[in-house]
Amino acid sequence: METDLPEAQPQDDSAPATALSDRYAHLRRATEALVAPLSDADATLQSMEDASPAKWHLAHTTWFWETFLLRDHAPGYRLFNEEWPFLFNSYYEAEGERINRFARGLLSRPTLDEIREWRAHVDAAMEPMLCDPAHADMIELGIAHEQQHQELLLTDIKHALFHNPMGPAMWEASSAEVAEVSELEWHSHPGGIAMVGHNGGGFAFDNEGPLHRVLLEPFALASRLTTNAEWAEFIADGGYSNAAHWLSDGWAWVKSEAITAPLYWDDQGRQFTHAGWQARDPNAPVTHISYYEADAFATWAGARLPTEFEWEVVAQSHDAGAGNQFDGNGGTVMPIGGGDLFGDCWQFTRSAYLPYPRFKTAAGAVGEYNGKFMSGQFVLRGASCATARGHSRASYRNFFYPHQRWQFTGLRLAKDI
Amino acid sequence: METDLPEAQPQDDSAPATALSDRYAHLRRATEALVAPLSDADATLQSMEDASPAKWHLAHTTWFWETFLLRDHAPGYRLFNEEWPFLFNSYYEAEGERINRFARGLLSRPTLDEIREWRAHVDAAMEPMLCDPAHADMIELGIAHEQQHQELLLTDIKHALFHNPMGPAMWEASSAEVAEVSELEWHSHPGGIAMVGHNGGGFAFDNEGPLHRVLLEPFALASRLTTNAEWAEFIADGGYSNAAHWLSDGWAWVKSEAITAPLYWDDQGRQFTHAGWQARDPNAPVTHISYYEADAFATWAGARLPTEFEWEVVAQSHDAGAGNQFDGNGGTVMPIGGGDLFGDCWQFTRSAYLPYPRFKTAAGAVGEYNGKFMSGQFVLRGASCATARGHSRASYRNFFYPHQRWQFTGLRLAKDI
Amino acid sequence: METDLPEAQPQDDSAPATALSDRYAHLRRATEALVAPLSDADATLQSMEDASPAKWHLAHTTWFWETFLLRDHAPGYRLFNEEWPFLFNSYYEAEGERINRFARGLLSRPTLDEIREWRAHVDAAMEPMLCDPAHADMIELGIAHEQQHQELLLTDIKHALFHNPMGPAMWEASSAEVAEVSELEWHSHPGGIAMVGHNGGGFAFDNEGPLHRVLLEPFALASRLTTNAEWAEFIADGGYSNAAHWLSDGWAWVKSEAITAPLYWDDQGRQFTHAGWQARDPNAPVTHISYYEADAFATWAGARLPTEFEWEVVAQSHDAGAGNQFDGNGGTVMPIGGGDLFGDCWQFTRSAYLPYPRFKTAAGAVGEYNGKFMSGQFVLRGASCATARGHSRASYRNFFYPHQRWQFTGLRLAKDI
Amino acid sequence: METDLPEAQPQDDSAPATALSDRYAHLRRATEALVAPLSDADATLQSMEDASPAKWHLAHTTWFWETFLLRDHAPGYRLFNEEWPFLFNSYYEAEGERINRFARGLLSRPTLDEIREWRAHVDAAMEPMLCDPAHADMIELGIAHEQQHQELLLTDIKHALFHNPMGPAMWEASSAEVAEVSELEWHSHPGGIAMVGHNGGGFAFDNEGPLHRVLLEPFALASRLTTNAEWAEFIADGGYSNAAHWLSDGWAWVKSEAITAPLYWDDQGRQFTHAGWQARDPNAPVTHISYYEADAFATWAGARLPTEFEWEVVAQSHDAGAGNQFDGNGGTVMPIGGGDLFGDCWQFTRSAYLPYPRFKTAAGAVGEYNGKFMSGQFVLRGASCATARGHSRASYRNFFYPHQRWQFTGLRLAKDI
Repeated sequence: METDLPEAQPQDDSAPATALSDRYAHLRRATEALVAPLSDADATLQSMEDASPAKWHLAHTTWFWETFLLRDHAPGYRLFNEEWPFLFNSYYEAEGERINRFARGLLSRPTLDEIREWRAHVDAAMEPMLCDPAHADMIELGIAHEQQHQELLLTDIKHALFHNPMGPAMWEASSAEVAEVSELEWHSHPGGIAMVGHNGGGFAFDNEGPLHRVLLEPFALASRLTTNAEWAEFIADGGYSNAAHWLSDGWAWVKSEAITAPLYWDDQGRQFTHAGWQARDPNAPVTHISYYEADAFATWAGARLPTEFEWEVVAQSHDAGAGNQFDGNGGTVMPIGGGDLFGDCWQFTRSAYLPYPRFKTAAGAVGEYNGKFMSGQFVLRGASCATARGHSRASYRNFFYPHQRWQFTGLRLAKDI
Repeated sequence: METDLPEAQPQDDSAPATALSDRYAHLRRATEALVAPLSDADATLQSMEDASPAKWHLAHTTWFWETFLLRDHAPGYRLFNEEWPFLFNSYYEAEGERINRFARGLLSRPTLDEIREWRAHVDAAMEPMLCDPAHADMIELGIAHEQQHQELLLTDIKHALFHNPMGPAMWEASSAEVAEVSELEWHSHPGGIAMVGHNGGGFAFDNEGPLHRVLLEPFALASRLTTNAEWAEFIADGGYSNAAHWLSDGWAWVKSEAITAPLYWDDQGRQFTHAGWQARDPNAPVTHISYYEADAFATWAGARLPTEFEWEVVAQSHDAGAGNQFDGNGGTVMPIGGGDLFGDCWQFTRSAYLPYPRFKTAAGAVGEYNGKFMSGQFVLRGASCATARGHSRASYRNFFYPHQRWQFTGLRLAKDI
Repeated sequence: METDLPEAQPQDDSAPATALSDRYAHLRRATEALVAPLSDADATLQSMEDASPAKWHLAHTTWFWETFLLRDHAPGYRLFNEEWPFLFNSYYEAEGERINRFARGLLSRPTLDEIREWRAHVDAAMEPMLCDPAHADMIELGIAHEQQHQELLLTDIKHALFHNPMGPAMWEASSAEVAEVSELEWHSHPGGIAMVGHNGGGFAFDNEGPLHRVLLEPFALASRLTTNAEWAEFIADGGYSNAAHWLSDGWAWVKSEAITAPLYWDDQGRQFTHAGWQARDPNAPVTHISYYEADAFATWAGARLPTEFEWEVVAQSHDAGAGNQFDGNGGTVMPIGGGDLFGDCWQFTRSAYLPYPRFKTAAGAVGEYNGKFMSGQFVLRGASCATARGHSRASYRNFFYPHQRWQFTGLRLAKDI
Repeated sequence: METDLPEAQPQDDSAPATALSDRYAHLRRATEALVAPLSDADATLQSMEDASPAKWHLAHTTWFWETFLLRDHAPGYRLFNEEWPFLFNSYYEAEGERINRFARGLLSRPTLDEIREWRAHVDAAMEPMLCDPAHADMIELGIAHEQQHQELLLTDIKHALFHNPMGPAMWEASSAEVAEVSELEWHSHPGGIAMVGHNGGGFAFDNEGPLHRVLLEPFALASRLTTNAEWAEFIADGGYSNAAHWLSDGWAWVKSEAITAPLYWDDQGRQFTHAGWQARDPNAPVTHISYYEADAFATWAGARLPTEFEWEVVAQSHDAGAGNQFDGNGGTVMPIGGGDLFGDCWQFTRSAYLPYPRFKTAAGAVGEYNGKFMSGQFVLRGASCATARGHSRASYRNFFYPHQRWQFTGLRLAKDI
């Protein structure tokens, strides 16, 4: 049963040239730019248990720096406010009791301005630490953590504003043009044994490693994302009313939630965006779909979703920094197509979110980061228009429950060959 | 079975001397004063389905004037905003579709300032109508309606701020001293046939009439409200853990909600107030209790709750404008005792909220005002420290479900003699 | 305010001539006859939390005799089974812990035959007590209690069998003819002061007393019950889709439960009965409606529901033993009309279920009988086709929550004159 | 990236020697033997939505033969009862509407005896088909299907009887002795490329194929199942109250359901069994645990759960027909230990239940068999004491949601080497 396997080869993933302190400054400014169009009241809204207020994201990311860098490593640092850690811890059990998740939307105090003061206070205290190599790893984690919350802030506030019948806009509609849609092509891959996971060069989350070998069967991956026009065909063909296309849990979800279209679609050809209600472009990639919907569409289309490793081996030769990703300009947070493997929307895989061989969680609160979510969720790969450019990688694993769809989620078909 | 009954005699309830326009101006200013200490975010909070955001109360009361006075009767009036009626209608089915009740807390827009502009716009348009006798009745209703919402605004924002672990205060703690507690005395009434209900002089809600005869058995009413100290005795005696004191539904509620004390009490002798967490004064009347609790306490005390008519016949000789009521100064919204029949807190009666003989609902949306709530609720009488002085009357009927306790609710014992 | 009131006059309600032992024997046989057509599995079904298995009713009524008569008063009596009291106590908190209400439907053991053996055992032990005047009051209570459970058994098993898509029948369809429907007439009453409540002659439940005076305004009561044909008109006129007819809680119930007709009606002109699905007779009284429906119909019809006291003063001159009531023959448990004040179905009143003046609960477990249910429910008067003849009285107060409708509930209109 | 891979090699899995007709007869008798100790009422119980009544299992398995063999392939066959297919279809959407799943427990009719008649009727009609090779595949599926329902019947009735406070027994306690517990040893496996999945020889479910290659890292598998004594150590060490051991969803489940021990354990050293409440043997394998518990235990123990493929490659050299499995004698349905890879209880793997490469669902209703459940569940391997001997295989994939634990579920630890 034994056979010769290739050795793991480090990917070319050299450390970023930009200094940590510059990246930190850019990061923090970008987060704050996201809430510039929001009032204190906007920033307090929580529209569902899965989402958090914009203000909470501002505060929680600051809590992270204050707790894991300043409190633990900056001699003489005093907490900006003794009560706030209780309010803005999220899921770190090791850090003690937390506010009930759904009560976040009741935190009108502290105000948005008070949170901004906290941010400034923490940024000043962080200054000397940013150049200290002893903290570089934790700072990288903090940057990645805050980038994740930038994306959640964008998707959470979109969900909250959507519930206002007036359909308020945060930004002007993007002037970015949706790309012309090319004929769908299938890019073949011969399968075989491949290395996947992060190679250890540069930052990665714990769940991306260890680097390890996987065995793939031959497959083909679609040359582009599925579009709104293709999704409209699925609907027109009765896709939401034919149990044969659906997973059993998906069908139950469609029935109980009366699902008939992606989230944010109305029946007048529009979709809700950060710029309010806008006409749907048939050429744009479809987004805000659940795993159940992605799987049903793929079944209907006579194809399937890729596995996370099929996607990754293809992505290893692509530029993770290309494509329609978030550069700090909220107004362009819309899928526009074009075919890059990264950008526009996260792509569902048929892989459950599980640990890699020899995966170990780190000790302490930071060890709760990813491992404890390894049940019941599916892996998404790529990056979305709301993902900070530079945040994602070929080995990056995003994950959500199969019914969730408030993220920019879409699909790229695969098939056996 | 027939017998001679006394004729209905008009009570001495002459129309108020103050001009409607002055009363309107005072009313509107008082409502706005309530939100002066609140941020836009505070004013957007909705902590439960029973409660509404402060901003919503500001807007809904304005919607009432705009809809039933300006839209219907002011020639040429144009709605300030075409979309807002949908947002700020409350329960008037005849006025068309409404926003889902629990989505009120997601209305960060319009902003508090925009609502204030709407108020100013409506106030200006109302000006000429205030002196027109043709509208006097509807204006009286609008004043009473907005006074009710002042009280709800006060109790709703208290509930919302209570959910912030930091216990924020809207106002400084009141300097009003709690009165010394007198020995409880029993004031006897011989019973007999009495007239109850509103006599038609001055404004009253539809549910207070028609004026009619009732037959009372002899009874006695306590000389004052039940106090925090007496409630503490009930707790110390195991009041919350002995099923024998409780109605069946009340016992189920105590168990399922793990109730062990009035709302807003903590186990360190404090209670939550508009001035944040404050020490409980044992001499102050107990408040924020449910009907179930009031009934259980009365049973434990070997007494009972009065009926609404027992309370009313006693109250007919009291000054409804005396006592600790709301004069527009939020900082004093706290029960302080003293023995007046009106003020401090609403008093539970054992009477279900039902129509009086020959009660008829009015036609149209205004007819939905009170009649449609006549199932499942209990009547409370008196007035609370959050009730606008001048709003209540001997015939006034407040009503809530037996589990609700976020209003200033308390009790005055009664007994058979 | 004082006036001359008539003295309470005992009603002619002489003690029944039949010996207690004969009545006991008849009662027990009748209960058992109800389950004769049922299998052990049928008798184990529980279709909702409000209902109990037929077997449970057989057992619980036996538990009552064993607990309050034999255990407490029969020297040397030993419990038939030590574990069963825990299973078959219902709501008597004073009697200790009980099985979770909704778990009654999981009691396949003890079997129906074992319960029958228990009944025989208890009946034998009861024999000597039946002639002892010291126990007569408790025996009267036990008889009334078991009669109540006969009615519940009938309505609960009907509800359970209704959930079987095959629509099984317990009995052949009744051959009793539905009476011709007379023109609705209004019987006027001049109002005045009347005595209501039980006069103390013969058995009555604690909630029927004390006998007391009430003051009534002139009113008229319909000469007969509302019919299926009249209800069909209400439906045809959009009765279930016009909020204007409904109480607020009722309208919410109609919407959330998607109510469009009385319980047990299908859209093919049939209704579910103990004899399976049968054609609805338009002339028969409508039944299986909620308070919300009864109230909405009355509003639509330009009338109202009577108060419990209006109904009672009329009923005082009627024969409570007449009409279509239950004589132990299950096959005829169907409303057939005819105009008697008692029988066919319980009649909703607009009176909430509350204590009478000077009402006191008895001490001990038996004291839990009725008083603790005095919140949130409405009083129904009369008797239904499932009520044991002899069980009801003019002063009898039945009570249910306003949404409940699995009992034989109907309505008789009233109006002001 | 390409490398030489071994060819798929058929496993030695020759067709069973016993004639289909004998196996069919044995199967049907065994199913009926399971309900021999049950009354009609026992067989009607449904204690939760996940479970079905014993009678329903008897009927549903018969529906399968009648529908997919007799109705579709036996000329002139007439349905035993036209209404029953609606009642006893389970999840086959393609077969039309079905009864609501949780209403199964309300089917007192048809009776257990009527179901038995149906079974006899179908068995007689099946007789000529059993020797026809054209139907052999479908018959194999029917046998496997009914064996699955035998196991569910056993676990469902256990769950139902558990809810009876009297703890009724179906059978005498087993006289089978629990094996002595050996020291836990670790059996190493070098990893490499292996073939997994069913090789096509003999019957297998669609989800076991296609046969395909997997790449394994070196690992070690425990020599035996985890025992009750070891689980008691986990509890004693605070296993259920330390979030650090738990998956996030698992911890939420522990908190919300107040989980402190495996299902069926009480705090007096007993566990509920088909023979009622019995003392727990510390040496017996622990069972009735959820995936969350299995994963938490493994984390606490410094180990992990195996993947389904690690388990399978080890199992390929084991006899799937050995160990403590179900031979038709209900009285012995208890884990007794001993170390076989098959038997006692299903073993959790850390593999999500997902399709194998090139998996395709079959057309028609039978195609709904397994594929549509491929989201949110985990794979279990092996066989339990309630699994019909001969039913399981090395490639067999059982699957449940991570919170479910009413099956005989346990664990065998694994670790990286």
